[in-house]
Amino acid sequence: MKATHAQIRKWMQASSIESRLDAFGNLIGRHSGALNGSQQADVFMIGSHLDTVVNAGRFDGPMGVMLGLGVAELIRESDIALPFDIDVVGFSEEEGVRFGFPFIGSLGISGQFDPGDLDRVDVKGVTMRQALADFGCDPDKFEADSYRSGSRGKVIGFMEAHLEQATRLEQSNSPVGIVTSIAGQTRGTIVIEGVAGHAGTVPHDQRRDALAGAAKLILDIEKLGQETPGLYATVGAITAKPSLSNVICGHVELMLDLRHELDEVRLKSLKTIDLMIRELSATRDLAARIHRADHSPAVPMDGALTRSLETSAGGAQSSVEMMVSGAGHDAMVMAKLAPSCMLFVRCRDGVSHHPDEFVAPEDIRVALEVMTNALIQISET
Amino acid sequence: MKATHAQIRKWMQASSIESRLDAFGNLIGRHSGALNGSQQADVFMIGSHLDTVVNAGRFDGPMGVMLGLGVAELIRESDIALPFDIDVVGFSEEEGVRFGFPFIGSLGISGQFDPGDLDRVDVKGVTMRQALADFGCDPDKFEADSYRSGSRGKVIGFMEAHLEQATRLEQSNSPVGIVTSIAGQTRGTIVIEGVAGHAGTVPHDQRRDALAGAAKLILDIEKLGQETPGLYATVGAITAKPSLSNVICGHVELMLDLRHELDEVRLKSLKTIDLMIRELSATRDLAARIHRADHSPAVPMDGALTRSLETSAGGAQSSVEMMVSGAGHDAMVMAKLAPSCMLFVRCRDGVSHHPDEFVAPEDIRVALEVMTNALIQISET
Repeated sequence: MKATHAQIRKWMQASSIESRLDAFGNLIGRHSGALNGSQQADVFMIGSHLDTVVNAGRFDGPMGVMLGLGVAELIRESDIALPFDIDVVGFSEEEGVRFGFPFIGSLGISGQFDPGDLDRVDVKGVTMRQALADFGCDPDKFEADSYRSGSRGKVIGFMEAHLEQATRLEQSNSPVGIVTSIAGQTRGTIVIEGVAGHAGTVPHDQRRDALAGAAKLILDIEKLGQETPGLYATVGAITAKPSLSNVICGHVELMLDLRHELDEVRLKSLKTIDLMIRELSATRDLAARIHRADHSPAVPMDGALTRSLETSAGGAQSSVEMMVSGAGHDAMVMAKLAPSCMLFVRCRDGVSHHPDEFVAPEDIRVALEVMTNALIQISET
Repeated sequence: MKATHAQIRKWMQASSIESRLDAFGNLIGRHSGALNGSQQADVFMIGSHLDTVVNAGRFDGPMGVMLGLGVAELIRESDIALPFDIDVVGFSEEEGVRFGFPFIGSLGISGQFDPGDLDRVDVKGVTMRQALADFGCDPDKFEADSYRSGSRGKVIGFMEAHLEQATRLEQSNSPVGIVTSIAGQTRGTIVIEGVAGHAGTVPHDQRRDALAGAAKLILDIEKLGQETPGLYATVGAITAKPSLSNVICGHVELMLDLRHELDEVRLKSLKTIDLMIRELSATRDLAARIHRADHSPAVPMDGALTRSLETSAGGAQSSVEMMVSGAGHDAMVMAKLAPSCMLFVRCRDGVSHHPDEFVAPEDIRVALEVMTNALIQISET
């Protein structure tokens, strides 16, 4: 990450963009050409994250930062005066790999970072506080480096470009699409208690098999996902105990992931799953329940900014896909600080979080054009 | 185990039963009252195992050894002369906990132990060879301590008593039941390959979810077990990868356990499961297969010995349950050496491999009576 920062700062320097590392590990470059660069100028932020998952591709995150830099360079090269500064931001730790905790950079900038999280440790026992200090960040600057304080200027908007991580743009033959909202999400643990028993002595009609019960539920949840438009219903993780070949399974835990653009559909689906669990308990004589559920509401993108992206994209391609993002992004966090908008860029076969991840250079060029034109439009309203 | 051996040897000594530790860790006591105790007398063996699973009950195994000792004591006290010696045996390592390898004692006595298995190690890296030596066993005596060699006398029969580990005797109100055969077993690993993906971006109609596929198969296998009389069909173990809440599962392994009294029904059921797996692969675009399958054929108990137990039990209770053992027992291994028979004793609620395991003293008394009378009958034929 240090080498990445050094490289990007070199590029920023070459474009007369002033760069700095903030207290949260974010790399921020300011194009302060606006209105003679007054300290009190408003700020429009453009960016994405620089971190990746393990064994990742080259686009998930960094492409959005490079596009931010590209927009600032184009504006500077075109000698366009804007009524605001542009801050290009490379967020830290969006994926949450190191501390099992995502969005550290955007939570910090948007004033939502809880200092209590500094005590989280990585797998080697290093605290987040220590890791930030080792990286050269100054935790005493938390307050100043949150844009909520206003000391860096009033943030009037945030724009993020990200690869789609799915195939809708590929299918519709569109280089880019516009995100209307980021889906709400419920994560929960479903616990199913049965009775362990000998696989060779307990007759089928006397079994209370927690794994067979879990299997029924997994299929019911999959069916709900298939039959409810726009719903993503996933059981991705399972733990069975004792998980021995010759013992009927007595205990299963499932991880449920439920996402939808509309919170009411997601919560209604959760209720349906709760009914499925009750019915399962009754018909199979199991004790099943949702043990814990964390809810994140859907985050709509800003209407005006999104329309600017849409208009701009309409000039670059015949039709514009308006999309819901099933995945979380920094824009979701930044939307709490300022009006935010988001552009998706087509990626090959929908592959992401994998070295094969690929976005065509010509699609990135379209994104650059769409973002720059949208920003100019925004500056004129 | 040393304390257990010391205690039982003390009891044997009190009954003038000569005891010894053999090369395989078995404790063997000989009642040599037969025909003036000639060295070349035939031998009838009675026993079960002394080891248990972790966190076990007090009956699974040791009860059968104590019943063997009880029969020998009753015969001696009654001054009954038999045309054979009685060897009471407490087998070592029937459960296979320490080396992940069961039936060590009975494999040794019946001449089926492969010395290559001495190189197996426990979780601490101690070899079986070392563990046997540390327990005071002499691996050089392997040959002599196998009864197949004849040096200990010709084995004319083996009888084992064991708790039922199920509830059929409880339901039929019978203290004991007779085992007609030990079910054949197939153990296999089913591998299901799908494609991992983002739980929030891959639409349901494009998913190749290995866990949902596994769920379908688990239910199909359960249904086969429910609909095929006498079949025990169990998926008890599951491993999913990556098993993360927000990733569609790409890889699952299931452990299959299939048991039936009749080998042809078991093998036909396996074929049916193989067809299910093919259909699953086709309908869900997964790559699923049975990766490895180990087969143990069913082992019928000896007809004549079993009839003696049945007749004897018929004198002690109104009707006699004739049963298939779904679990493996030392009698299954010993059947390769000599005609073998087996008695099940009622246990409370079918609970086994658990501290709550319980067999009523009055049921054990019935078993002692049935076994002793059967042995006398056998001696008269």
